[in-house]
Amino acid sequence: MFDSHFQTFDEATNPSLGTPRLKMLRARLKAMKLDGFLVPRADAHQNEYVAPCEERLAWLAGFTGSAGFVIVLADKAALFVDGRYTIQAREQVDAKAFTVVPLAEISPSDWLAKNAKKGARIGFDPWLHTHGQIQRFETAANKAGALLVPIEENPIDGLWSDRPAQPSGRVVLHPPKYAGESAAKKLSRVAASLTADALLVSDPHALAWAFNLRGADVAHTPIALGYALIPRKGKPRLFLEPEKLMPRTASALAKLAHLAPPSALPDLLKELGAKKQTILFDAGAAPRRLTALFEDAGGKAEIGTDPIALMKARKNAAELAGARAAHLRDGVAVARFLCWFDKTAPRGRLTEIAAAQALETFRRENGALRDISFPTISASNAHAALPHYRVTEKSNARISKGVYLVDSGAQYLDGTTDITRTLVVGQASKAARRANTLVLKGHIAIARAVFPNGTSGAQIDGFARRPLWEAGFDFDHGVGHGVGSYLSVHEGPQRISKLGGVALEPGMILSNEPGYYREGAFGIRIENLVAVEQRAIKGAERDMLGFETLTLVPIDQRLIEPKLLTPDERAWLNAYHARVRAALAPHLDAAERAWLTKATKRI
Amino acid sequence: MFDSHFQTFDEATNPSLGTPRLKMLRARLKAMKLDGFLVPRADAHQNEYVAPCEERLAWLAGFTGSAGFVIVLADKAALFVDGRYTIQAREQVDAKAFTVVPLAEISPSDWLAKNAKKGARIGFDPWLHTHGQIQRFETAANKAGALLVPIEENPIDGLWSDRPAQPSGRVVLHPPKYAGESAAKKLSRVAASLTADALLVSDPHALAWAFNLRGADVAHTPIALGYALIPRKGKPRLFLEPEKLMPRTASALAKLAHLAPPSALPDLLKELGAKKQTILFDAGAAPRRLTALFEDAGGKAEIGTDPIALMKARKNAAELAGARAAHLRDGVAVARFLCWFDKTAPRGRLTEIAAAQALETFRRENGALRDISFPTISASNAHAALPHYRVTEKSNARISKGVYLVDSGAQYLDGTTDITRTLVVGQASKAARRANTLVLKGHIAIARAVFPNGTSGAQIDGFARRPLWEAGFDFDHGVGHGVGSYLSVHEGPQRISKLGGVALEPGMILSNEPGYYREGAFGIRIENLVAVEQRAIKGAERDMLGFETLTLVPIDQRLIEPKLLTPDERAWLNAYHARVRAALAPHLDAAERAWLTKATKRI
Repeated sequence: MFDSHFQTFDEATNPSLGTPRLKMLRARLKAMKLDGFLVPRADAHQNEYVAPCEERLAWLAGFTGSAGFVIVLADKAALFVDGRYTIQAREQVDAKAFTVVPLAEISPSDWLAKNAKKGARIGFDPWLHTHGQIQRFETAANKAGALLVPIEENPIDGLWSDRPAQPSGRVVLHPPKYAGESAAKKLSRVAASLTADALLVSDPHALAWAFNLRGADVAHTPIALGYALIPRKGKPRLFLEPEKLMPRTASALAKLAHLAPPSALPDLLKELGAKKQTILFDAGAAPRRLTALFEDAGGKAEIGTDPIALMKARKNAAELAGARAAHLRDGVAVARFLCWFDKTAPRGRLTEIAAAQALETFRRENGALRDISFPTISASNAHAALPHYRVTEKSNARISKGVYLVDSGAQYLDGTTDITRTLVVGQASKAARRANTLVLKGHIAIARAVFPNGTSGAQIDGFARRPLWEAGFDFDHGVGHGVGSYLSVHEGPQRISKLGGVALEPGMILSNEPGYYREGAFGIRIENLVAVEQRAIKGAERDMLGFETLTLVPIDQRLIEPKLLTPDERAWLNAYHARVRAALAPHLDAAERAWLTKATKRI
Repeated sequence: MFDSHFQTFDEATNPSLGTPRLKMLRARLKAMKLDGFLVPRADAHQNEYVAPCEERLAWLAGFTGSAGFVIVLADKAALFVDGRYTIQAREQVDAKAFTVVPLAEISPSDWLAKNAKKGARIGFDPWLHTHGQIQRFETAANKAGALLVPIEENPIDGLWSDRPAQPSGRVVLHPPKYAGESAAKKLSRVAASLTADALLVSDPHALAWAFNLRGADVAHTPIALGYALIPRKGKPRLFLEPEKLMPRTASALAKLAHLAPPSALPDLLKELGAKKQTILFDAGAAPRRLTALFEDAGGKAEIGTDPIALMKARKNAAELAGARAAHLRDGVAVARFLCWFDKTAPRGRLTEIAAAQALETFRRENGALRDISFPTISASNAHAALPHYRVTEKSNARISKGVYLVDSGAQYLDGTTDITRTLVVGQASKAARRANTLVLKGHIAIARAVFPNGTSGAQIDGFARRPLWEAGFDFDHGVGHGVGSYLSVHEGPQRISKLGGVALEPGMILSNEPGYYREGAFGIRIENLVAVEQRAIKGAERDMLGFETLTLVPIDQRLIEPKLLTPDERAWLNAYHARVRAALAPHLDAAERAWLTKATKRI
């Protein structure tokens, strides 16, 4: 009845391969006169989702998490993972070959400084690291008296016999009615913002925004891998594999830019370097390979911030209208799922995978779903205490009595969604109800926040934590990340977090997702997307901003302790639920509508 | 009856001198083959308070503000000031000679990039700038095709005929009962924290802390100008003018360090540079002169963060006990002043200067006052709307009906204080009462805040602003700065501000001073000092922290609109006032006690 097209639940890993593959790699390194090699989980664009052919770390070590780093030395090899992956890494990796090192204990560069031998030559693939990342390793290698050596040909690629092909997803133009601004206008805005001679666009999300194009090269995010060079004056150059472009797309893009394959980029950069040009490279996305060859040719590489990131973050009226339409459509699908879940889960036979499949199916039924925006987190009780839990055939659990957390999102042409709801199955413990209410108070504090123009995400991060703090609780992730418009579900530079120093601006879309996690017991998270908007306040002396909540799905009231809410908080919840009810009801059948009425009743 | 020993109110400036002095300087620059010169308001340690002989900018341009920057070119000269000094600068400076440029419009380096001529040689005194400051000017000069040139002899010093002598304040040892930790122990902690071969201590506050010494070289802060070199292994070296040291002090310090005059430092750095040593210099305090000569000699200058700053910020038990004693003593003096003020001000003849003199006199009467910790801000109504208003003979106003703001502090051997109270004279407007209550709500939010270990000041900054934001108001300064222990009243790295990325740690002392300013009408600020402390919360899962309020002085209740306070806020205020009453009453006479009882009554 239900199935999933956009997410798999198999593990696709085999710890026993780690030892022979590591042996092969070491032999190859020896032949290359190298004493070590850096293996990041990265592609040439520092993408969050990478193409299968870029999964070198998983091929080598068996670890399939979305973030990790391997350092291979002649006598030892370490896999570095963050807190959410320590357990998974230990399960997936052959402990005889790789030591799993939590990043909280030591950084890969500090580990290298401690473990590299004097005189050692440590290789790295300069396409897979940024300049800044390599600088840190150079400092570390220097401390150990070792040398960091860029390698033209990644040694893993020659050993990886069944390596998948480079992705060649078709590029399509993103229609003006969704983009809201022509590519020509965007490109001239970018050019006008430059002080350097040109900007090298190496982040495919920035590329997609600037040229109003979308692609199909990686999972969950409609990007096309490629580059662009946008000069301060003159016609931009766009570097995309020609096979991705239908003739009509190519001719439309050719009006905006000179088209060339990505393989032509290095020579162009050498040429511009020889002319002593200054080019701005994005510190977070530009590969060391490109900055280094440009500098070696005599150019001046300014390693800074791609101005597109901030332009892309400020959604225009068409993008905001699209986001509202996408959230209504998505809200209907999620509400139908919740209604079905409430009927089905208490019978005790539903599994985490089946629930994720059902949710995707409800979303597909609206006919507009292009992809899910990330693998659904479908987590019962103790699994929900892992903020990034990813259900696999192996971990798959029956959804038992207590709480169930589902964090999911969708890609529609008009917008990207991301929503988390924490639900009751049967009955929840008093501890879960209290924690959920404290999390909700934090969520409401963000939803209701007003703040002057210029306020950073860091300044309001504490609003979401304060009710938890007062109880001696906290959670170890940010309150909110930026979200793209039919682009990445994790977009910068806007964020609500300790590290969010960027000012929040009208049009920015962010998540509002405080949480609480009790290890081995349960996890809570309540997530809506919000858009920053102007706020008129009587007597105001400053330009004030606030949030428009975009997500339209009931928040489970069975998990709320009403007496812990203030009158203002209760008023917010009732107004939100009234809005959800009015928006969703026309799109539901009678049974679903009855469920909705109950789920959104005033408290 | 009242007078002030530690603050003057004259302007000591004459705009008409700007033109001839600028002419002299330009002639001198021409003789030196320079086309321009940078004149910062700075000494070789980037101190907040500088010795009179370092006031080159005031000598040249006539501007006496505490922050400013002059760039002299052959055909133009600009004085850069921040928002608080725009008006004062225009009054003090000869507009025919200097253009006053608000820093909000353009930075000095960007101005130089725009205004320097191609091929121009711009001189600077490398003692008066940090490496980072000069880097920015080098980039700017580079853009203009100009060259930045370090000058051994500051050209102003030769022109300044009556230039005051270098300060030679006596150095004294800071007794163990106040310092709480021996200098030997501190120095070995510092050495143990180093990865470089040595640390160059160039911030005199760090020097004072590490060696448990205090000096008398600048106003309001008991520092001794000097340097130290603390090696990872071996005996430190302390560079202080021998004339500042009594024999007993010298022999005590000689046990901790090799003593030498500051003039010996450059040669030592050259020697260590030739040995290829690595030395850590503080990015914020080390002069370019020293980092450059060390690097030129072959050394590796690590320009980073002096670890002493953070050690000094975490006050130990003796320092915290000292702070409590200092605040009780200071609270008695300020409360006596407030009682006197309430009787005197309504008669309408009191001036801002007379009030500042009275406050200092009440403080001196406790017999322990060493200095005021900064020039008292004594401001009636519209003057109070200038957050950094400094009263002079010229600006001095009668204290009229409405609000009066007094921001002041004291230096005692056992601690440094800083307190602001906003008072009613006669009756205050409804607008002032409302604003004061909103500010108070923010103040209480910080005072009552609980947060986990690791929380930064930026994360709670918004707590103090939220009540103002909800009304569409804000204020343009941080919520709190760090405070030293018988040291600087402005101490880093701890702060509660948008920019406060450093984690708050137990023992740190900060101000809690939200405000509100209505231009041309009135200003509000309520400031107490607080110390970060551990907090036990039942059921807590994290190490929680909170603030102990140190300041003990009534908050003017005639400016509070009780109906705007929540029950929790009212409870905090009543508990605070009960604590203030109990602490101060035993030290007051009968009339003062009667005043105190009224000022601290429950609401």
